[in-house]
Amino acid sequence: MIIDQLVTSLLEGDSRSLARAISFVENEDPRAFEILRAVYPSARNVPVVGITGPAGVGKSSLVDQLIANYRNAGMKVGVVAVDPSSPFSGGAILGDRIRMQRHGIDPDVFIRSMATRGKLGGIAAATFDVVDLINASGKDIILIETVGVGQDEIDVVKVANTTVVVLMPGLGDEVQAMKAGLMEIADLLVINKSDRPETDKMEMELHAVLSFFQAENVWHPQIIRTIATENSGIDQLVAAIRDHNQYLNQSRRLQEKLREQSKQRLIDALEYRVTSQILEDGFDRFGISQKIDEIADRKVDPHTVVQELLKHFKME
Amino acid sequence: MIIDQLVTSLLEGDSRSLARAISFVENEDPRAFEILRAVYPSARNVPVVGITGPAGVGKSSLVDQLIANYRNAGMKVGVVAVDPSSPFSGGAILGDRIRMQRHGIDPDVFIRSMATRGKLGGIAAATFDVVDLINASGKDIILIETVGVGQDEIDVVKVANTTVVVLMPGLGDEVQAMKAGLMEIADLLVINKSDRPETDKMEMELHAVLSFFQAENVWHPQIIRTIATENSGIDQLVAAIRDHNQYLNQSRRLQEKLREQSKQRLIDALEYRVTSQILEDGFDRFGISQKIDEIADRKVDPHTVVQELLKHFKME
Repeated sequence: MIIDQLVTSLLEGDSRSLARAISFVENEDPRAFEILRAVYPSARNVPVVGITGPAGVGKSSLVDQLIANYRNAGMKVGVVAVDPSSPFSGGAILGDRIRMQRHGIDPDVFIRSMATRGKLGGIAAATFDVVDLINASGKDIILIETVGVGQDEIDVVKVANTTVVVLMPGLGDEVQAMKAGLMEIADLLVINKSDRPETDKMEMELHAVLSFFQAENVWHPQIIRTIATENSGIDQLVAAIRDHNQYLNQSRRLQEKLREQSKQRLIDALEYRVTSQILEDGFDRFGISQKIDEIADRKVDPHTVVQELLKHFKME
Repeated sequence: MIIDQLVTSLLEGDSRSLARAISFVENEDPRAFEILRAVYPSARNVPVVGITGPAGVGKSSLVDQLIANYRNAGMKVGVVAVDPSSPFSGGAILGDRIRMQRHGIDPDVFIRSMATRGKLGGIAAATFDVVDLINASGKDIILIETVGVGQDEIDVVKVANTTVVVLMPGLGDEVQAMKAGLMEIADLLVINKSDRPETDKMEMELHAVLSFFQAENVWHPQIIRTIATENSGIDQLVAAIRDHNQYLNQSRRLQEKLREQSKQRLIDALEYRVTSQILEDGFDRFGISQKIDEIADRKVDPHTVVQELLKHFKME
């Protein structure tokens, strides 16, 4: 298929072309750059919503209900489900994710699983590109769901403009401690499975933690109770996402976010490309292979080697 | 304190000097490079054991029992507990970790928590450096414990030569799915809390998964049942760690691992330093700030900008 044709049909909203373009990004096929260059200016500032939180809290069920809600409102929906620790890609991975497939035959819902574990350019970089492609295909809202709550997941969620952190009552101590890293990035907090005991206690704790982490912010994260499996609280969540999006648009915050994201993307891409170039062109020329042996044999430390190598690089 | 003095007392095993040197690494203080250069050749090929697995399976209790076991054998023990998602560093973070503190007054046990979230050089890079410092201070074995099972944690565990993946019976579906990424890196598998129901079922499943993921390996991961809180199964785990270490030493596998690790360290350090240099020297010169605005305004995509910037970059 000629790239021009693929670009045209992607911009018209053709799901197959979109899926193909995403595969190019995932496989680091050079055609991905061509397509991105062509469609990038056509992407609009639609809401990009990140859904993150520990495993088992019901994120996929929540996303499933959100899709149904947005579809009822006539919106076209794109979903990227990112699992950095999984070796599988390109389809539904997890049992939970199967549930989302009820939207699979709806031509105005595009769902894609990504498992970019070990991706050289970084998982956030790939997610940015994939979200741009989905965006350019004419979706009205894009959801990014992550599995787990490590740094990778936090990086992925930074691709979004609104971050929804999903928790549930009765998580273990160690999982609770993880929340510290999540609190700082949360624009909205969801207590899912809120028919469980200890929901009140959890909401009180979350209010306390929020006031600690986000004292200086203008936006004060709402806490929303949901029971995703019963479609309870989803309307409130949709309204809260809309509120946050309005806040971003009315304040200067959206412009700031877009600039921060653009800077990070540029730095990540630069880092990746420069390093690739050094390894391709410099491996033999600068005796890098021998240096690696010397490091392994503890004759010289890696930082000293880097310092020597840096002398060969010039900017003009 | 003069760096030479710090290096001398670190090599003599002084905990305070070691702690200070680690802080330099964590704070990206240039003195960290000087110290590492000086002590790097003194580090020995002691066993470096990574302990990873989902939150709540009892990793810290297990590490606590391992420390006690190694101390009974007269070995000096170093422990790094890495939590990539936590904003806190330099002390005990989690409730569970408190238990390890019973070893805190033992001068031959060194325990350090690291939370290098957002560290620019990468969390694995910092862990490598910290393990070298602990190694050079004369420890006979080093344990690296991680919180959670994301890609960051997997990267951190790659600093180890023996990887112990800890699981427990009755983990949820989504957590089970995460295990795929763990299976490939596991040298030993521990089923902790093995007095729980479904332990037999889990062991059978693990055997099935292992045969799928590790068919081509010479080393066949053992599955060890433990109840860390009752000190049950710890002797078997210690024996299995010793067996794996012997396998590494007798086969060529240790040399291979050290070379792989050295290559990764060199690439990571190079990537970080080159990018820092471009951003410091090139930000104004190449109008990077304006390019970021253009990306944010969707006038040009980040990959096209990188392509232009790369033209300024030469190797001699």
